[in-house]
Amino acid sequence: MADYVRVDSYLETHLNESIAELSRLVAQPSVGAQNLGMEECAELVAGMLRQRGFATEIMPTAGAPVVFGEHKGRSDKTLLFYCHYDVQPPEPLELWETPPFEPSLRDGKLFGRGVGDDKGHLAARLFAVDALFAVLGDLPCTVKFIIEGEEETSSVHLHEYVRNNLQKLKADGCIWEFGGVDHTETPVQYLGLRGICYVELSVQTAATDVHSGTGGSIFPNAAWRLVWALASLKGPDERILLPGFYDKVIKPSARDLELMAALPETSEVYKQQYGVKSFIKGLTNGVDLRVEEVFTPTCTICGLTSGYQGPGSKTVQPARASAKVDFRLVPNQEPGDVVEQLRHHLDTHGFSDVKVELLGGEAPARTNPDDPFIKLVCDTAVDVYSAPMRIMPLVGGSGPNAPFIHDLGLPVATAGLGHPDGRAHAPNENIRLDLYLKHAKHMARLMAEFE
Amino acid sequence: MADYVRVDSYLETHLNESIAELSRLVAQPSVGAQNLGMEECAELVAGMLRQRGFATEIMPTAGAPVVFGEHKGRSDKTLLFYCHYDVQPPEPLELWETPPFEPSLRDGKLFGRGVGDDKGHLAARLFAVDALFAVLGDLPCTVKFIIEGEEETSSVHLHEYVRNNLQKLKADGCIWEFGGVDHTETPVQYLGLRGICYVELSVQTAATDVHSGTGGSIFPNAAWRLVWALASLKGPDERILLPGFYDKVIKPSARDLELMAALPETSEVYKQQYGVKSFIKGLTNGVDLRVEEVFTPTCTICGLTSGYQGPGSKTVQPARASAKVDFRLVPNQEPGDVVEQLRHHLDTHGFSDVKVELLGGEAPARTNPDDPFIKLVCDTAVDVYSAPMRIMPLVGGSGPNAPFIHDLGLPVATAGLGHPDGRAHAPNENIRLDLYLKHAKHMARLMAEFE
Repeated sequence: MADYVRVDSYLETHLNESIAELSRLVAQPSVGAQNLGMEECAELVAGMLRQRGFATEIMPTAGAPVVFGEHKGRSDKTLLFYCHYDVQPPEPLELWETPPFEPSLRDGKLFGRGVGDDKGHLAARLFAVDALFAVLGDLPCTVKFIIEGEEETSSVHLHEYVRNNLQKLKADGCIWEFGGVDHTETPVQYLGLRGICYVELSVQTAATDVHSGTGGSIFPNAAWRLVWALASLKGPDERILLPGFYDKVIKPSARDLELMAALPETSEVYKQQYGVKSFIKGLTNGVDLRVEEVFTPTCTICGLTSGYQGPGSKTVQPARASAKVDFRLVPNQEPGDVVEQLRHHLDTHGFSDVKVELLGGEAPARTNPDDPFIKLVCDTAVDVYSAPMRIMPLVGGSGPNAPFIHDLGLPVATAGLGHPDGRAHAPNENIRLDLYLKHAKHMARLMAEFE
Repeated sequence: MADYVRVDSYLETHLNESIAELSRLVAQPSVGAQNLGMEECAELVAGMLRQRGFATEIMPTAGAPVVFGEHKGRSDKTLLFYCHYDVQPPEPLELWETPPFEPSLRDGKLFGRGVGDDKGHLAARLFAVDALFAVLGDLPCTVKFIIEGEEETSSVHLHEYVRNNLQKLKADGCIWEFGGVDHTETPVQYLGLRGICYVELSVQTAATDVHSGTGGSIFPNAAWRLVWALASLKGPDERILLPGFYDKVIKPSARDLELMAALPETSEVYKQQYGVKSFIKGLTNGVDLRVEEVFTPTCTICGLTSGYQGPGSKTVQPARASAKVDFRLVPNQEPGDVVEQLRHHLDTHGFSDVKVELLGGEAPARTNPDDPFIKLVCDTAVDVYSAPMRIMPLVGGSGPNAPFIHDLGLPVATAGLGHPDGRAHAPNENIRLDLYLKHAKHMARLMAEFE
């Protein structure tokens, strides 16, 4: 197989060029939520594939276009990379040390919006492709890239795109958009994502706000209606009270628990990083806390809004109140079920006046920890990271892995350049150049061994 | 007594000048909650008194200054007018047809923030003083004005000011800041105000917001903590669950119920005016609804704020949540008791993490419906309004009448220029010029007869 000394030497020698290419990509804003620069960024990404000889398409969707590229390789195996070119909004701007769309290199890190999530991953993977071309003259396996533009806005059109392009996207394994090392510098293999059902609950009780001295006594209060409806969904014991909510939940297997037990302790890190004094349900640390973190479905209030929210007092009874509510789902829950359960629960508990709007849904999905593709991704990492990957059977976050796992039938593995202080979705998002290089080395090895 | 033909003629002839003076006053913003223009407005008001020969003082308080003015009159009786120069915040600005601080005259109405609440009352009362000077050459009784700047922010420093100035404020009767006609064009005599205890409840569960996919599973959620704490205060049956909350409540007397029964039906008017489909507690109309409206203490959520409140979805677990909560109190409840009961209730229900900040408190207070001063105010209205005043023993709103009734020992009567579509506290606040003129005529008669 490939000569990794020559591959690594190529990558070390050409790192600056790759970072320069990444910087040009980061300098192109592509804020999906604000529809800013999406077409321009899709063109830029397609150009990056095309100049490397990939057969490249920009496929329109009802939202942002999907970029697809394919390059034949020696073996009859195909590796699919899933990436995204859209980024989170850069706000609040005043908290950035350097402007979000002017990539800045300092202390061995590159700063900028989207540098880690997810443009750095795309650039590092193409860098690995470059190294294989330079050393081998061609690619060991066929390589496909699907690079969407709606990952940060719930990948609304991706599922349909995948279903409509099953043949084009056919592959033998998929590398997910993200990955990286944990706080002990150990690379982590995330094998699945929770699903999500994100809804807005809203109540309107009157045409206008009313003076609280008058309306407060006899008119229904929108904020109270919302509070009571929310309190009916979950009490302080954290048990979610929707009928049938837990019915399809598959408990973690013995193998899952074995993997979870092998993971490092994170409780003190969490407490320090987020300023949290204690955890819910009386949990303190250990495997119980880690299992709770990913294998339990949740109902999280992400936002509340009603009436007067300024300084001091305003004596007003609000006509309208709303809440953003995020249910995280574990295998085999379905977001459609949750919306139905929620509507039924509200209706039967006297809250027919509370409207439910679905703002985003993804089914949960995970890959078998003992799949041979997972083993290959983990094995090829050892030489680069000098440590075996830690395997997490499921993570707390969500993403559109269900169409890849369930529709394309692919094993989906993670590998990436992330680090715990990477500040994805926050000001001063950054990547470490040493981890960028390691990710490229790892992906070069994976492609070389995928035969 | 006075020649009311000449008085009325003066008022009708000089209406435009008085409205011009009022417009200058409305054009001066004086938003207490935002500390906007308070000193400037106090100066403007003091100037309006001074130019009419009132001995005038601007008295500093720990908050906005109080303007006091006194003008001796012929009789040994003293009439005290209580007004305020502060106004509610003008937001939401986009709902105003003309800008809130650019008074606009159309369809016989003057629009602007504070035009009715309460600058129009001050201007109309000074207009009545002008008419008496013009016709009689002096004032029939001594007239005092106390014009505070914190009425819309719970009159935090007024009680202390009154207690420290009992001699200066000594009088024989007091006309309250507001009043007006109901939807049948009948003037109403409001004899008392409910008390208020306005608090902010807040919870902070972490140093920063956290991604809901991670923190949502194991960290305490500030919005949930707030929702559960609120839901513990009152359920959908509207019964307030603080220990001892109802202990000091005095039920309406037979005379109160007789007066309430004589009041007109308002249920359909309310439904149309506010776009409300039904009332709480299964109430539909009649005296039961009216008694509920004023003789029952309330707990109203005036505002809720937490986490993400923009369009679409953001998957975040909020570190902080807060609610503005307004308790309306009936005789003889005390705001201090409510704060204590609230703290005790939260602590004993597992919500020690929920902070309580008192933003304003007023005790309830009311005047005897059979007081001679009340009779005089009602009698002098008949000639102007061609109808006897309707007597309401208590109203739903609150205000600082307790120091006037309990500390100064004054009968407090209401008379004013309000009308049911005046939109106090809301966009497009307005007064009707015909009612402005009537209020001035009524107040001129009251001063003339107060001997």
